[in-house]
Amino acid sequence: MSEARSVDSPAITLDEQSIVDFAQLFDPQPYHLDREAADASIFGGLCASGWQIGALASRLTGEALVDAGVPYVTTTQVNYMRWLRPTFVDDQLVAQVSFGDVLSGSPVPDCDSLDVVVVLQDAKDQAVAEMTCRVAVATGEII
Amino acid sequence: MSEARSVDSPAITLDEQSIVDFAQLFDPQPYHLDREAADASIFGGLCASGWQIGALASRLTGEALVDAGVPYVTTTQVNYMRWLRPTFVDDQLVAQVSFGDVLSGSPVPDCDSLDVVVVLQDAKDQAVAEMTCRVAVATGEII
Repeated sequence: MSEARSVDSPAITLDEQSIVDFAQLFDPQPYHLDREAADASIFGGLCASGWQIGALASRLTGEALVDAGVPYVTTTQVNYMRWLRPTFVDDQLVAQVSFGDVLSGSPVPDCDSLDVVVVLQDAKDQAVAEMTCRVAVATGEII
Repeated sequence: MSEARSVDSPAITLDEQSIVDFAQLFDPQPYHLDREAADASIFGGLCASGWQIGALASRLTGEALVDAGVPYVTTTQVNYMRWLRPTFVDDQLVAQVSFGDVLSGSPVPDCDSLDVVVVLQDAKDQAVAEMTCRVAVATGEII
């Protein structure tokens, strides 16, 4: 059994338009849509939908794994996802991705599986979300 | 202890532009972006990102609960999410939402919690995704 590894993704920054665009389509809550309503809300400012954060965390996870030489194909299952802090306009996010051994088999053809623990952190090293996922990795490629 | 209840959301349909727009921002895989590449892929056609499906399932869950008189505020935690079938262009989706008793307390102020089981179904009554979530509901309002 090999040791668990941990890799960081590239950083991304969320702008206001992206937060509002996502919310209009998928999560039309006042604190994701309107600055004034958001300032007066429990979050105290315009912040991103948790589903936008989840999708971004998954994308950053794939990028971090590929950068580390892991043949990531897609995310197949989320076993846990929790939002810990709001992500505000211009916050910078990085995914810290930890993983262990490859598990044989996957619902995706010609793939095996990898369980990953993802902590999404802001520029102050505060965790904004955490999730555990199972991802598909191409069979036979060296990790 | 009250009996578990089950309610259905309104139906929605995913169009091609919405699938491609989401994928460009959050999940840039060929089978979410390009019809020809998708036709040749393991899915056999252009299909939506699982994260778009998750976000839509969450939105439909809120709508179903509000329609049923449950004072849904937001989703606070996902305990499990699994994608079972691809969702193709023009597929119609409905969320079946089951829930039991209100649990005292929530990370959201002035709210309690409700655990919900969500099955997202297509027009052929096939499950395309399932998830279990904890949602915040306004304290003191009758369910």
